[in-house]
Formats: sequence, C-alpha cells, structure tokens
Amino acid sequence: MKYSVLLVVLLLVALTARAQRSPQVHDDGTVTFSFTAPQAEEVLLRGSFIPRKTFKTPAGVFGKDGSYKMQRQGDTWTYTTKPLTSEMYTYYFEVDEQPTLDPLNADTVRDVTTMLNYFFIPGIPGNLYMDQQVAHGRLQYVWYPSSFPGLPRRRMAIYTPPSYDPGRRYPVLYLLHGSGGDETAWPTYGRAAQIMDNMIAQKRCRPMIVVMPNGIADRAAAPGIDPYNHEPASAKNTESMMGKIERAFIPEVVGYVENHYKVDTTKAGRAIAGLSLGGLHTLYISANNPEKFDYVGLFSAQTTNAMTNDRIKTLQRVATNYGKVSSIISIIKGREEEGNATMKGIREGDLQIYADIDQKLKTQFSPAPRLYYIAVGRDDFVKKLNDDLREKLTLAHYPFVYHETDGGHTWENWRKYLVDFLPRLFK
Amino acid sequence: MKYSVLLVVLLLVALTARAQRSPQVHDDGTVTFSFTAPQAEEVLLRGSFIPRKTFKTPAGVFGKDGSYKMQRQGDTWTYTTKPLTSEMYTYYFEVDEQPTLDPLNADTVRDVTTMLNYFFIPGIPGNLYMDQQVAHGRLQYVWYPSSFPGLPRRRMAIYTPPSYDPGRRYPVLYLLHGSGGDETAWPTYGRAAQIMDNMIAQKRCRPMIVVMPNGIADRAAAPGIDPYNHEPASAKNTESMMGKIERAFIPEVVGYVENHYKVDTTKAGRAIAGLSLGGLHTLYISANNPEKFDYVGLFSAQTTNAMTNDRIKTLQRVATNYGKVSSIISIIKGREEEGNATMKGIREGDLQIYADIDQKLKTQFSPAPRLYYIAVGRDDFVKKLNDDLREKLTLAHYPFVYHETDGGHTWENWRKYLVDFLPRLFK
Repeated sequence: MKYSVLLVVLLLVALTARAQRSPQVHDDGTVTFSFTAPQAEEVLLRGSFIPRKTFKTPAGVFGKDGSYKMQRQGDTWTYTTKPLTSEMYTYYFEVDEQPTLDPLNADTVRDVTTMLNYFFIPGIPGNLYMDQQVAHGRLQYVWYPSSFPGLPRRRMAIYTPPSYDPGRRYPVLYLLHGSGGDETAWPTYGRAAQIMDNMIAQKRCRPMIVVMPNGIADRAAAPGIDPYNHEPASAKNTESMMGKIERAFIPEVVGYVENHYKVDTTKAGRAIAGLSLGGLHTLYISANNPEKFDYVGLFSAQTTNAMTNDRIKTLQRVATNYGKVSSIISIIKGREEEGNATMKGIREGDLQIYADIDQKLKTQFSPAPRLYYIAVGRDDFVKKLNDDLREKLTLAHYPFVYHETDGGHTWENWRKYLVDFLPRLFK
Repeated sequence: MKYSVLLVVLLLVALTARAQRSPQVHDDGTVTFSFTAPQAEEVLLRGSFIPRKTFKTPAGVFGKDGSYKMQRQGDTWTYTTKPLTSEMYTYYFEVDEQPTLDPLNADTVRDVTTMLNYFFIPGIPGNLYMDQQVAHGRLQYVWYPSSFPGLPRRRMAIYTPPSYDPGRRYPVLYLLHGSGGDETAWPTYGRAAQIMDNMIAQKRCRPMIVVMPNGIADRAAAPGIDPYNHEPASAKNTESMMGKIERAFIPEVVGYVENHYKVDTTKAGRAIAGLSLGGLHTLYISANNPEKFDYVGLFSAQTTNAMTNDRIKTLQRVATNYGKVSSIISIIKGREEEGNATMKGIREGDLQIYADIDQKLKTQFSPAPRLYYIAVGRDDFVKKLNDDLREKLTLAHYPFVYHETDGGHTWENWRKYLVDFLPRLFK
C-alpha cells in the first residue's frame, strides 16, 4: 500500500500545483500574477509590459523596468494587468526591494546575467514566438575551430529547417547577438527556432539554415559551458568591439558552416544580421567582405557616428588605456599574463577592420547588395547613431530599407525585426 | 568623443563586475559567496554542499537544503565555506525568507520549476562536469513523431560524439530523466555532454550516441517550448507512471533514432539507463523488450516493491481514483474533456506493460544482459525499493552489478553513476 500512498501524495502535489498558477493569461489579454509571501511588506511586479523609466547619462539614455504594486490578499500578493497586446513578455517580482523569480512559472530566460520569467499573449506577433503544431527544425550546438588566442574552439547554434535534406543546398542567415548575449541568446530570448518554424510553415520565408555564433571575443561559449573561462561570466565585453570577431568571421564561422553543411555558397545565398553589438559586427563584416553577403540587416545596431579614420584613432586610444588599466588590475590580481594578452590582442591590428569605412561602403554598394536593412526604435539610445548612418548612406545614394518602430533597445523589437526581415531574404 | 565616453563607461562596468564576483572558488576549495542587500535583516546561503535536513512522511523520507547564515559587512553579506570536495554544486540565497538567485553568477540551472545557481570545485569528479579543452561532440534538439494523444510530436536531445562520422555505426545509450525533468535535464543539470566529451577524450568510454528523450507523458517538450501546452508547467507527472512512456519507447524513440542516425542496431549496441522515474521506465522498457538492450542501468530507480500482478491491480485502483478525482477537478474547472482523456488513457491498457514482471525478468535474463546495473545512495528514499529489487534478482540467480554510494536522491549521485556506468558499456 506504500506505493499507492506515494501516488496519492503525488496526486495532491499535482492538484495543488495546478490550482496555484502564475501568471494566468485570460482570454481578454489581461494577466493575473500571484505570489505567496506572508512576511513581505511590499511586493512589486516588474516586467517588460510596464512602461519603462528612462534616465540620462553622459553615454546616452537608458531605461529601467517600471513597476506595479501588488495587492495583498491573505498570504498571497496578486496583480491583474489591463489587456496586453500580443507579445512574449518578461517579468519578475521585487519583494521588499529583493528581485526574485516566480516560483510557479518554470519558463525562464537569461538576459546578460539576470534570469527573468516569461509568458506569451497569443495573437500577432506572439503566436510566432510560441511553439506551434507545425513541423519543427533542429537546433544544434556545434563547436568549431578558432584562431582566438587561448580559445581554440568556439561554440555556435545552428538551426536546420524541417525536412532538412542534406542533399539540397540551403541559403544561410548568420544571426548575431548583442553585448551580454551569447550563442544561446537568439535561440532562447530571441525565439529564433520558433520564428523560423512558424514562418516557414506559413510560407512567409524560405527554408534556410540559421547560424548563431558566440560574438564575445574573450568567451568561447555561454556561461557554464566555456572550457576556457570557468569563472562566472562578467560584463567584460569591450574586446568584442576591437575587431577580432569581425576579422575571424569569414574564415572561421562561414568557413566552418560551408565546409560542414551543404549550403548555397554564392553571395545571393548568404545573409547576415545582428542586434546592437551584433549590428556593429554585421556592418563591418559585410563592409569588409563586399563579395560575401547580398542581404544585410542592422537591428538597433551599435553603429558609430565617427565612421572615418578618426574612429580607429579613438578606439586605439581607448584601447591603449584599456590595456594599461587592464594590465594594472591584472598585475594587482596576479594575472599579468592576461593583461598582456589584452594589449597583445589590440596590437595585432584587428582594428584595421574599422579603417576606411567610407571606401569600403563604396565598394560594398558597387553594385549594392540586394537588401541593406536598418531597423531601430524611436526611443532607442542608438537611434541617433542609426540616423547618422542613414544620412551617410542617403548622401552617397546607397539604397537601403529603413524600418522604424516604437520602443527602444529591447528583445520585443529584435524579434519583430527578424520577422520583418526574413520574408525579404533569398528571393 | 561621445563614443569614447561610452567605452570608458563600459570599461568601468567591466572592472566593477570583475571586482565583485560571487562565488569565488579559492585554491584550497573554500568558496566565498557575496550578496549585496542593504535592507535585509537576514540572508541565508542554501546549497547542495550544506548538510540536508530530512523529514519523514508516510510516503518516505524527504530532504531540504540546509542553510548557513551569511555575515553582514556594510551593505554586503558574505559567507566563506570550509574546503569543499570536488563537485558541481548548486545554491541560492534566502533574503528574509525570500529565495533569490545570485545576481553576480550567470551560471544557472533549473530543477523542476526552481532556478538554482551553480559552480564547480575542480578535481575529481568536478573536472568531468566542466567543459574542458578537448574535442566536443554536438548536442541536437530533435522533434520526432509520436502516437501520444494530442502530442503528435515530441522532443529529444541527441549527443553525437566528436569527429562524428555518419558513415560509421555508433552504439547508442538511451538516457532517461526523472519526474519533474525533461529532455534538457541530462544536458544541463546532468552535464551529459561534458561528461561524454571528457570521458571519450580520456578514452574511459567508447564514442557513442546519447539519446535523451522527454519522459513526461502529457508533455511534448521542456517548459516554454511545448507546442501543445502553452501554460507554465506544473508538477503533474503521475501519467508518466501509467505505462505510456514505456509502451511507446521502442517504436517511437528507438525507431526514430535508428531510422535517422547510422547506429548499431544489435542488442549489443544498445544501452538504456534512467534516474528515478527514468529508472522505473528503464526497468519496464528493458523487461518488456528482452531482445533490445544488452546494458541496463537503474540510477536511484523508482522501482516498486510489489513487482507482481498485485502491482498492476494497485496501480489500476489508484489510476481509477486518479481518473475520478481528476474528472471532478476538471469538471469544476470546465475541463471535462481533459479528465476523460486521462481516464481514457488509462483504459487503453498501457498498464499491461507492468503485468507479469517476474515472467518478463525471467525472459530478460535468459540469457542475462551483459550488464544489469543498479546504483543508489544509502540515504535515498528509494533505497528500500532497490533493496527489494536486488533481493528478487539475487533469489532468482540473475546477475547484476550493484553500486551503493553515500547521499540521497541527488544529481550529485546521478552524475557519478553515469561516470561509473559509461566505461562498462559496449565492450
């Protein structure tokens, strides 16, 4: 009888877990959040559906999630929103100023170093981000050889479409993440596999391979699975703006994909797009390799407003200071080697990738790629940089597509940009 | 100059992030945790390295993480452990009774519905769980057709070894998770890809394919990526003990793998192992298919102590009650269909998989498989069930290997069991 007791206990656990559910998405698009915290004095709900508070710094305008006060009902705190438009939203609770996840919701995603809960409001575009009852492609995590000092292998995610036929040649989209992201960013927060499955099922884009490499120069892979950095990840991503990622991209990332998968190796069969830092990488990778990509997408790109040789001088100066500071810190910490490696990396001339951008763009646009796509939100702190880039392209009579949206530097926008970008590819 | 200001800000962020690090693993195996919480009155550290508190219920002995009080130093709370033995450990903070993750550590893993931070103490066995500078296999997430009502496709993870050669036939290990897990459990918390990479590199096991399917009967995939269950996952896994998983295993999971990968399809080329609920599945899948698996591993298996036809009667009775309760609840909730589906599922006769186990074991051991492996911890609440199973096997003179360890029903043990199991396969 012991066993039946166990089953009954499991049953009760199951029923209890079913009764308490958070969040509850109602048919009218309102959402009820519940959180049990008898000792708490104040519980806030913070989420991507709450208007953000913005603040200005010398570096630009930044935002912070807004909050709603949850109402206590006995031991449980609840909040029901107004109807929300269709989306994938993230949220968390703040209990007496302490951020915490929703223990009733196993759906979590990582943003840089922060875990967030998420939920969907069905509809458009939310349905594209949810797994649907359609044919699914495969998501693979693959290691490839790399020339990066100390990182002989790096990791990328590769999506192959449903009914993948290794005998056929597929076009390839290279899809790059932002600062603080890694090769898991587009497959998790970006819902890239779901978007691809759903867009292909709806015949809104061509079946294609999507390659999502790690774009952090001093990391080989996402936190916890990097063979060369066993310490928890930090926000130290400045090296990713020093040209290394761009310079290695064609020989190492594209080279690996084209050697290991049966893909279209013509310019018309290659697309590249990236968000934020990945937009910076996309701009320079495509400009330095004008014969490679017929489709280029900049999503809230961290472009620069000094697209001249002045830029390389600025970077070199900052880089030199960075190297020095880094060296001092490293020596204090007994890590002289690491400091020197940083300086050595910069001395190797990776920054040449940023030189002569005007001339490089001229070559890239002679003839113009089939698509040069720029998307940015009106409230994005990189909006001005993208305005400057558009002005430069317009003055030079280079054709491009511009997609301006509400909102800022958010995954809500980047997912929408991908959905808008995909149908324009490989036509 | 705006850009250089931004870079300097990023630099400061990077240096700050580097200075505050948690946890800090020191060379002597002690670990320092830091957490900033100026408003908190008490911060506890809870983790898998702290002795657990156990409590008894009618269903058995269960445990809860122990805790250490952290010490306040200004706004920051810290705790330094005694030297820890090599392992992958999980932890979290409890701030005035509120569980929270370490904001300085991006390494997180999900246990059922709870997120935990983790870190490694290098050495043996920890080094096997960390990504090392060795050749890496690939981890793929694959959807396969399924006969489960309402779930026409289910998801599995497949590890292919380094230098995978599709022209060669590899042996296959089917590796099953426990109740509350899913197809991501072994690849994340179980560190299966790292263990395989490292064991293969050290020539401690043969290169093999490892297949890790989802074993929850009413779920197609992990939370957030299940096309048929868009609501957050609950703990409702009792259906996974009703025979469905076992009955569909050979035609659907093994069938898919053997049709889509070039694998050894002899009995000597197939192994199956599972932890807890996955051990229950392993026992019955292998017993019902005596010609299929030459290597069988039960890791802390949820076996039963009524391995007779009494068991099926007990299950049937509980199942019937379950169906009734479920129906009542479902009707209250306006989900009559779901309640009926549960009862229908049980009526379909999946439970026959559990019938006549003595006779099935007799067939399975005539002749005996090359390896029948049972591992369990001395403090595990399923220890007694495994004692009973061993007694049964011993009385019948069926050969098996028994591996008893310290500890309980933990991932620390299941990873060790995998490491102990792998060298015994495919020899």
